[in-house]
Parts: sequence; C-alpha cells; structure tokens
Amino acid sequence: MKVKVAVNGYGTIGKRVADAVTSQPDMTLVGVAKTRPSFEARRAAERGYAMYVAGGGTEADFTAAGLAVAGTVDDLIAAADVVVDCTPDKVGRENGKKYQAAGVRAIFQGGEKSDVAEVSFNALANYDRARDRRTVRVVSCNTTGLARAASVIAPHWGVESWEATIVRRAADPGETDRGPINGIMPTFHLPSHHGPDVQTIVPGLAITTTAVVVPTTLMHVHVNHVRLSRPPTDAAQLLARFRSTPRFHIFAPWEHVDGTPQVMEFARDRPTGRPDMMENVLWEAGTRVEGSDLYFFQAIHQESIVVPENIDAIRAMFGLAPDGPASIAMTDRALGIPHP
Amino acid sequence: MKVKVAVNGYGTIGKRVADAVTSQPDMTLVGVAKTRPSFEARRAAERGYAMYVAGGGTEADFTAAGLAVAGTVDDLIAAADVVVDCTPDKVGRENGKKYQAAGVRAIFQGGEKSDVAEVSFNALANYDRARDRRTVRVVSCNTTGLARAASVIAPHWGVESWEATIVRRAADPGETDRGPINGIMPTFHLPSHHGPDVQTIVPGLAITTTAVVVPTTLMHVHVNHVRLSRPPTDAAQLLARFRSTPRFHIFAPWEHVDGTPQVMEFARDRPTGRPDMMENVLWEAGTRVEGSDLYFFQAIHQESIVVPENIDAIRAMFGLAPDGPASIAMTDRALGIPHP
Amino acid sequence: MKVKVAVNGYGTIGKRVADAVTSQPDMTLVGVAKTRPSFEARRAAERGYAMYVAGGGTEADFTAAGLAVAGTVDDLIAAADVVVDCTPDKVGRENGKKYQAAGVRAIFQGGEKSDVAEVSFNALANYDRARDRRTVRVVSCNTTGLARAASVIAPHWGVESWEATIVRRAADPGETDRGPINGIMPTFHLPSHHGPDVQTIVPGLAITTTAVVVPTTLMHVHVNHVRLSRPPTDAAQLLARFRSTPRFHIFAPWEHVDGTPQVMEFARDRPTGRPDMMENVLWEAGTRVEGSDLYFFQAIHQESIVVPENIDAIRAMFGLAPDGPASIAMTDRALGIPHP
Amino acid sequence: MKVKVAVNGYGTIGKRVADAVTSQPDMTLVGVAKTRPSFEARRAAERGYAMYVAGGGTEADFTAAGLAVAGTVDDLIAAADVVVDCTPDKVGRENGKKYQAAGVRAIFQGGEKSDVAEVSFNALANYDRARDRRTVRVVSCNTTGLARAASVIAPHWGVESWEATIVRRAADPGETDRGPINGIMPTFHLPSHHGPDVQTIVPGLAITTTAVVVPTTLMHVHVNHVRLSRPPTDAAQLLARFRSTPRFHIFAPWEHVDGTPQVMEFARDRPTGRPDMMENVLWEAGTRVEGSDLYFFQAIHQESIVVPENIDAIRAMFGLAPDGPASIAMTDRALGIPHP
Repeated sequence: MKVKVAVNGYGTIGKRVADAVTSQPDMTLVGVAKTRPSFEARRAAERGYAMYVAGGGTEADFTAAGLAVAGTVDDLIAAADVVVDCTPDKVGRENGKKYQAAGVRAIFQGGEKSDVAEVSFNALANYDRARDRRTVRVVSCNTTGLARAASVIAPHWGVESWEATIVRRAADPGETDRGPINGIMPTFHLPSHHGPDVQTIVPGLAITTTAVVVPTTLMHVHVNHVRLSRPPTDAAQLLARFRSTPRFHIFAPWEHVDGTPQVMEFARDRPTGRPDMMENVLWEAGTRVEGSDLYFFQAIHQESIVVPENIDAIRAMFGLAPDGPASIAMTDRALGIPHP
Repeated sequence: MKVKVAVNGYGTIGKRVADAVTSQPDMTLVGVAKTRPSFEARRAAERGYAMYVAGGGTEADFTAAGLAVAGTVDDLIAAADVVVDCTPDKVGRENGKKYQAAGVRAIFQGGEKSDVAEVSFNALANYDRARDRRTVRVVSCNTTGLARAASVIAPHWGVESWEATIVRRAADPGETDRGPINGIMPTFHLPSHHGPDVQTIVPGLAITTTAVVVPTTLMHVHVNHVRLSRPPTDAAQLLARFRSTPRFHIFAPWEHVDGTPQVMEFARDRPTGRPDMMENVLWEAGTRVEGSDLYFFQAIHQESIVVPENIDAIRAMFGLAPDGPASIAMTDRALGIPHP
Repeated sequence: MKVKVAVNGYGTIGKRVADAVTSQPDMTLVGVAKTRPSFEARRAAERGYAMYVAGGGTEADFTAAGLAVAGTVDDLIAAADVVVDCTPDKVGRENGKKYQAAGVRAIFQGGEKSDVAEVSFNALANYDRARDRRTVRVVSCNTTGLARAASVIAPHWGVESWEATIVRRAADPGETDRGPINGIMPTFHLPSHHGPDVQTIVPGLAITTTAVVVPTTLMHVHVNHVRLSRPPTDAAQLLARFRSTPRFHIFAPWEHVDGTPQVMEFARDRPTGRPDMMENVLWEAGTRVEGSDLYFFQAIHQESIVVPENIDAIRAMFGLAPDGPASIAMTDRALGIPHP
Repeated sequence: MKVKVAVNGYGTIGKRVADAVTSQPDMTLVGVAKTRPSFEARRAAERGYAMYVAGGGTEADFTAAGLAVAGTVDDLIAAADVVVDCTPDKVGRENGKKYQAAGVRAIFQGGEKSDVAEVSFNALANYDRARDRRTVRVVSCNTTGLARAASVIAPHWGVESWEATIVRRAADPGETDRGPINGIMPTFHLPSHHGPDVQTIVPGLAITTTAVVVPTTLMHVHVNHVRLSRPPTDAAQLLARFRSTPRFHIFAPWEHVDGTPQVMEFARDRPTGRPDMMENVLWEAGTRVEGSDLYFFQAIHQESIVVPENIDAIRAMFGLAPDGPASIAMTDRALGIPHP
C-alpha cells in the first residue's frame, strides 16, 4: 500500500514536493491545497493534481479561472496519511493543530521553530531519528546544507570549531516584491540562528554562524572555515569523500563555473525535469586544507535542496526503507539526482 | 534520408539548437564544435554529442578534462549537409568563407548583418523565402519577436505606424562579466537597428524602434504602440487571433504573472526539458485597443526564441515540409511547445 | 517679510525641500514634521530644523533618541503660511482637510490626484497659473520631466504626436524593501497615467505614455519619439534651445556618460551640497532629428527634480517674484543649479 | 612651505585625493594627470586643477573637448615633491621607475603588491613607520578597514583569532561594464589575500580572511568573529572605545540604518562635499560580545576610505605633524569628518 501524501501550500517548496511525491514508487499524491488560482495552480491542474482550497480562498475564484476544485483543505487532510505542510512561516504551526485533531501525521518546514514537531530531520545526518514519528520538521535550506556537510566532515576528521558566514539570496526568482535592489543587509542577530538549528540535527557540533542578505535570487553561498581535529593530508582526500556521498556536487576548474550564475545554468542544462540543484555544490578550487584548517565554499539552492529531504522524512516516518542510505538512493533515483 | 546538421559554437544558442535538432524526426546532429572544455562541453558529452575543436582550442585541453574529441571543426563541416553557425557576433561572417569553400549550406544568427546570407528568415513571416537557399540568416531574438507579432497584426488589421521601445536584458543568466549592476543605459543609435532588421523580414512595415539596456538577465520586454488601419472592435478579438497562432503565449490576469520573473518561473514549471519560453509572451492585461491604437507588451526570452526558427530554416532550405505551418507544427510538437 | 514654510513629511522629497527652503532669501523654514526618529531626523536636528511629531509618532520616541521635539504637526501648521506636504501618496489628500481647517495654504506632491489642489504646477510650463492660489500640486518627477521638455519643444517646433516610454527605477537608493531584484515589470495601465498628467500642465499636448519598472535605484529614463509640425533642420538647433533653457543638462560625447550610473557619478562630483541632478538630463548622442521625427532620451532623478519646482510654487502662490523666469533664476542660484 | 602634491590618475580615488589635498592647510595640489577627457576631467577644470596628459592620451583630445592642458605627466612629476599614484592596479609599479628616476617621492595604492614601497601604511595603526620615507603604500580599502579595527581591538582586548568574511561590492557606482548582475562569486583564493595584507600593517595579527563578490555598487561589508584574550564585560565598553577613536561611525538602532543603502543615504545627507563615508561603519545592533567572542559587522566605502590615509601618509613622509593623532585630527577637520 502506497502512503497517501497531501501537500498543503503550493508555492516554491510545495510544488516541488508534490512533483517529487508523484515520482516515487512507494507514495501517492492525494492532492494539493492552495489559497488562490495562479499560473502555478494551472500547472497543478495540467499535471492532474487534485486541487483543494485553503486559507481565505474560495472555490468560486478557482472555478472562474477554469480550474476544478476537489474540496477544502479539510477534505484533503481527511484523505491523507501524512500532510507535508509547505505554507508560509508561522502558518504551519497553526495548521499543526488541525492535523493533530484529524489524527494525520505531518511534516513541517524549517520556517517553523523546532518545537513544532517531535524531531528535526536531515536524511544524511539523522534519518533514524524520524522513524515512526507522527510529526517531523525538515530543517531549512541553509541548515540542511550545513547538516549535510557536517555529516561528512565531523565523523571522518572531527570538528574543533566551524565558522560559517551565510551569504543569503534576498528573494526567490519569482518574487518581485522583495529587495534590496542594490546593497548588503547584515543580519543583526549575532551569531545567527543557523548554528543552533544545525545543532538540532548534529548535537554538540561546535558551529558558529553569521549572515548577510545580498541582491540576488539564485542561491545562498556558505563561506566555511573549519578547524579539524584529525585533518586529512590534503583537500583531495576530503573531496573524494564528498564525491562518494550522495547529494554533493563538485565542480572541477576546467568546467569554468565561477559562481552561482553558472551553477544554475548547469542546472538548467540538466536533461530532465525542473532546473534545480538539490545537492550541496562545492568547488575543487574553492576547497582548501592547510594544516588543520579546512576552508570551503558551498552554494545552496534555496528552492529545491529540502525537496528530497521531505521525501526521505516520509519514508522514515512510515518505515518504507530499511535505512537512510536506502531511502536516499530511492529518492535520488526517482528525482534524477546523480548518485555516486 | 535525414539532413545532417552541424552546430558550430556551443553557447547559449548553440546548445539549444543542438538539443532541438536531436528531437526532430527528419534531421540528425553530426556534432558540435567548441573552443574549450566547460560544464557545457561536459553536458554535450553526457548527451552523446560528438565534440569537435574550434577556434583557438586544442584537443589536449579537452582530453585533460576527460572529454573525447571527434576532430576539428573542419572535419565537422565536411560531415554535414548544413552548419548552424552559433559563434559570437562577427565570427559567423568569417566562418562563412569556410562553409562556402567546403560547399556546405549554412545558417547564421542575427548577430551578423543581413548580407551574410541570401535571405533573412522568420518561420511565421517568410518561411517560403528560405526554400532551397544555400545560406539563411535567422534574425535576432528581438527581431524575431517583432516579426512574429507583425505577421499576425499586419495582414489582419493593417499597420499605419508601429513604435516599439525595446527594454533589453543586459546579460544572459550565466554571464557574470557584464553590467550594469545598477543603472539604465540608453542605446544611442536612434532609431535602433531593430526596425530596419524587422523590415528584412516584413518589407515596408512602418516600424520605428528604440532601445535601452537594464540590469536583468531574464528577458527583453517590448513596449508597443501600433496605429492600425482596420482596428478590431476590442482587444479580445486580437488576443483570440494571437491565441490561435503558434508561438504566442498569453497570460490571463488570474495567473498573477506580473513581470518577467513570473514568466520565467512559469517556464521552469513546465514539465519537460529546458526552462525556456520559445513563444512571444503577451498579457491580457497588457494588451489594449483604444480606437485605432493598439498597445501591448511582449516579453522575449533571448536565450531560446530563435531555436525553433533555426529548425524551421533547415526544413525550408531542404524542402522537408510542404509549407511554413507544417514545419512549425512539426518543430513545436518535437520541442514540446503547446500548439493551438 | 519672509514666507513661513512648514514641511510635513521628512523623507526623500521632504528633506530636500526643507534644505532648499533654508537656502532661499525670501522664505524661512518654520519646521518639519516626522513620525519617528531616524538617521534623517538626526540630520534635521544637526541642521537646526525644529522637529514636530506627526502621524502615529510620539514625542517619547524622539526624546529617547536624544532628539528635541518642538510640538505636534498641528502646532507646526499653525505657525506656517504654507505647508509643503511631502507625506506618502494618499496621505496628503487626507492632510488637506487639516490644512483647510487651519486656514493655511498647501502644496501637494504628484502622488496625489490632480483634484487635490486648485492647479497642477510646473515652473517652466505654467508658473502663472499658480499665482495667488491657496492650494497647488507639484506634479510627479516623471510628469515634471515631460512637462519641462514639452515647454521647450511645443512652442518652438510644434508637437504632432509624442510617444514616451518611461523606464522607471523600482526603488529609491535608501529603500531596501522593494523589488524586483532581477526582472522587468510592465505597467499594465495602458496608456500610462503620465500622459493625462502632463496634460494637466500642457493642455492638449498630443502625448501618449507607457511604462515599465526595472531593477535600479538611480534614475528614470524616458525614451521619446516626437513628431514635430515645424521641425528644426538638425538636432544642434534643438540642443541649443535646451542649453539656453534652465533646468536642462546636456552631456557631450567626450564626457563618456553612457547611462544613469555616470550621470549620478557626475552629480556626486558637484562641488557643494547633495549629490542631486535637478535638471532634465539629455545627451547630444541621444538626441536625433530625422525629417519631422525627433528622438531623444532623458534621464530624470526621481529624488530631486521636483525640489526647485516646490520652491517656485511657493513663490508663485505668494507673489514673491515678478514671473516664472525670475523665480527660476532665484531658485537655481540659491540651489547651485547652473543657470544658462 | 607647503608640500607640492601631484595626483597621477584621476579616477575614483585620484579625484578624491586631489580634492582632499586642496582642503589641507599644509599642502598644495600642483596638478592631476589623466589619459582622456571625460566628465571628471571637466570637473577638474572647473575646480581649477592643472591638467596633465598621461598614458596613451593626447593633448589634442583634451583641446577638442575645450579642456586646457598644462603639459605631460612628466612635467607634472618634475613640479612635485610627491606623487600620489592613483592609476589602475599594476600600472603604479611601472610608474614607480619614473618617479625614482625623477627623484620624487611617491605614494602607491593597495592594488600594488607591498614590495612596491618601503612600507605599507595606515594612519591609526602605524603612522610612525612612514616618517621620512621616500615611498609609501596606502593599503586597500578592505585592508584599511580591518587595520583600523585591529588598531583599536588588539591593544585593548587582545586578539586570539580573527575570522573575517569580506562581502565585496562587484563594481563602483559609475562602472557599468562589470558584473555579476544576479549571482554570488566566491573568491577561490583561500584564505584570501586580505589577511596577509593586514599583517603588513599589524604584524603577527592572527587574522584569517575569505571573500565573495556580490551584485552591488555601494560598499563592502566585513563579517567579523574575533576571539579576545581579555574581553570586555559587554559590547557597550567596546563601542565606547570605537566612538572615541577617529574614523569610526556607529549607528544606533533608532536611526533605522538596516544596511549599506541607508549608510550611503546617510552620507548623501551630510551637509557638505562629496557623499562619502570615510569612516569604518559599525552598528550597535551589529556588535555583540559573548564571553570571549566578539562579533561585529563593518561596512567599508570602497571609494573613499583610503582618502584621508593618503593625506596622512604625505604628512608622515614630510614630517608635517608631530604624530599620527595630530595628523589625523588635521586631516579630518579639513575633510569634514566628525572627530571624537
């Protein structure tokens, strides 16, 4: 029996999770919920997703746009084994009461605080902790990127200290009402919340984070300086380890990928599906080991990196895979992410 | 017998034309030529395209990157029935001598002046003029967009005068060495070259164009004001005509597509292939008829709009289709462009 | 006796008008009103401007910041002969009731509809219409730029038709919460409101306008195509006329001013005061006459172009100068705008 | 006798240094050298600076533009006691031979490597080292900002380790040919060259730096994490020290300066001169002490921060002031920089 998945909130993350669910062999999409018609709702209809009306939306709005409505978000919840909540920050927590009342399991996103769910989750780092849970929180894109990297670095070379500066994109590509257009905005919460959030996944990791916001829509970039307790002799060793781990992509110098614009151009050239980069992106030229000091950049595609994590979270909650690596392999094969 | 197509120059246009050729039933890609290895060359290899070394490039560079080389660009030319030249502006004209010497037919892009070829081409507007030609020039993205619109408007409602201001994107998404970052650059050539270029396709069209460059990478936008000699009673009539013509896409107000960021987000949501928008993009809310005055905006995806035109040009040159509409239908079906 | 001027609203326009008033020999600044403390309020204090609390603001907030408060906005109104209202769009109309009740004259900005005041105003175009009025509306930056140009072109060469595309900056330099970051937004109101607004100043002018918004903070750019009834023989004649008219600045080719970034750099190099460009900016290379067709670009500094107009409006209302040219000369001398 | 100063190179830095020299009581500007006419050359003429032709430029070009020429750059060098070289990176080193041959002293900018001069210089950190030197290098804007901060922090609280991520602006406001327009570019030199460069000023400082380039023109931002050996009990102590040191500007929360756009808006509101921010800019809300950890952001105005340093370097070389603090006070008073 396939697990019946509902997606509540059909924006940047929700539409990607919906597509990802439909591509998996062991789960089925019962429908998606949205507040108003839009080009994205139209696409959902074209893909055959049952559309349910959420929030302050009305069926009349959808019908006027020629889009069929299957019911309300409550109908959708009633039909599901698990709801993946992809509504805006803070709304998810409110929705949580509804899910609990309906007796349905729920996955929340990283925009909610960690106590929204029994456990915070990242597939590489703590898959087993989500087993059989009724509520799971998939951490945010930046936390996911750091947790993945930590899950490779910490066990193999030991982390004495980790400094990460997060250079954040100011808006998603389709968001036109957010700035700044020309300028840099420091995030005055010092150190930033990302460090403690990583620790919900990798307890005790000695990580300190800071953040700035910059006028771009493509990706975040993390500037990392890690002091290792058992450093490798050179960066090649470390890169080899990243290459053999799923959900990392390493660019070679001859590929002439000088920054996030070329990374996303690479994603657009991928043969199938959405132009996403669900892996952590590293560069050979941007990874350096000097004594016990490791420096590396990683670029994080804020729109898509958590999508495979949501799928793995479902699998962990319902026992659909023997372990994390098995789930990750299934997910990535279905999504077309190259697997080492 | 399929027509053997070579693509010389594997950048923004070349890589798209190569993919487009491989999807057509009546042509085959004999290979692509590139000067140096890059992430795009790697993708070509993964797609199985034979790679030939062009310009100042060396086979050694490719081999060092682990990319197989099939020969030089001269070998590629020798193996082809037609070369689609997608090299940078001005280089195409130089290459033309080589194609002529080799006795191979050639298609040039709009970055070359019109006398580079026997005829300038747009599939909707003048398909028949390219029949059996040995050299054809596919006009630039902006000229293509204007020529398509003119081919609908002029015959049905008559054009007294047409003013178009072309608001140009400053760089393609993967180009990181072009500005401006914050500012508007007028194009001091007044009126701009686009008007006369449209007239190479639609002779005698009373069009006047001007241009500015703005700091965005996504699309150009044309601001059009047309005085019609036989105006429709309302915009709905006109929009119906656009809707029934291939290679036009019209957004409805309820889709909430407020500008080029949402247009490209729509393209990214398309189910298959590259996130491109090969159609002229218009808006219901951005099209108005007032007496004999027609106002409309159209957005032009500079990276992809000429791709189907290159395919149709091949078909016209080799007599692969009975007429323009038949060729367009074949091309669009193969490329996944919705056909009215 | 100097005219006592109050400035209500101390943002982009208000702070400039306040400075401009203090530099004039025939008016005095009684104070400025602001809702909350900020770096701009601090600067007002350093300049010695009496600060009055407006809107939902409280005196306590200012005092906590170490800024002295002179009273409420009502106190300010009571002390003034005229209030220059520089509050956000729509707020001015509401404030108008208050001004009327207090029996004080008022100047509104172009964000309000034209019926907010007895007359819409531009110093070059219709100075005399504001004489002895109790309420005047200084039109918006784009309308001001077009009205100024029309006041030169129409009387000398006659306007058969005028097409202007307004390429608008999306945010002011200090605004960080407005987008788009990467994209072009058409203004779906077709034709745009600017045309009718120019006609409130130059009645019957055959002008049609359209607009797009682009991701820059520096200046607007107008792309103009005018059909003249009595064209000059060449652009030089026209440029000479612009050069001899106040509030126009023409760049020569050898100055290497290729777009708005260099225009604003020019403004920053000016020896005194704020780095503003209160003139219409034209280019020799960007002005062309071809038969009866005139093409020209003009750049408009949205932050400052209306500032001298507000000063002239005060002078017209209170009969402080014999005529428009005399007022303009006084204003410009005091503001350091080069005068022909 | 005033020191006779020549400025070779009249771009972003050169034009500011020239203005700064003319405002000092103990030095005189003998002239400036430039390769071609431009709006900046015109401004120099308006300010009465003698113009000398440099590089590949010709007198004829200047004369055609109506700009008087005083001679060649060699004439300028012959007339000076010291040349401030503000030519592009790498050109300064080449020019150095010429200065040496002419027996004139020289100041170079931070785009040259440190061995271009006898000593690298920052007024707060090592004024005395430049005394009586014949060649001095004023370090780059980012190095200047870090050296200033280090000269406050290191002596008072001791630096165990300092991590700085430098978020760099991609172009100056008037540069229109540099990108990226939308994206983040990591600087693959790891750690970046800024750390060793700071150590030419503050020997032995345990600083490690990394850098990224982002699409803005306004300012760089440094994200700093310093481990202190003798930490203050709270940030207020540290901020008080910064406030009492020249060339630091601290914003309070009530000023609502959320990022670099408002910082530069603050600079534009300054009552006199160019809209520059020659101080290191810090924020109360962006400075935090937690145990021995100090976190702080600082914004650096790349166009102007080195300008007062060039003036102080001249004073040190010629013994014009008794010590660094005295020189700094003279410089800042003349430039209008608020002095604590």
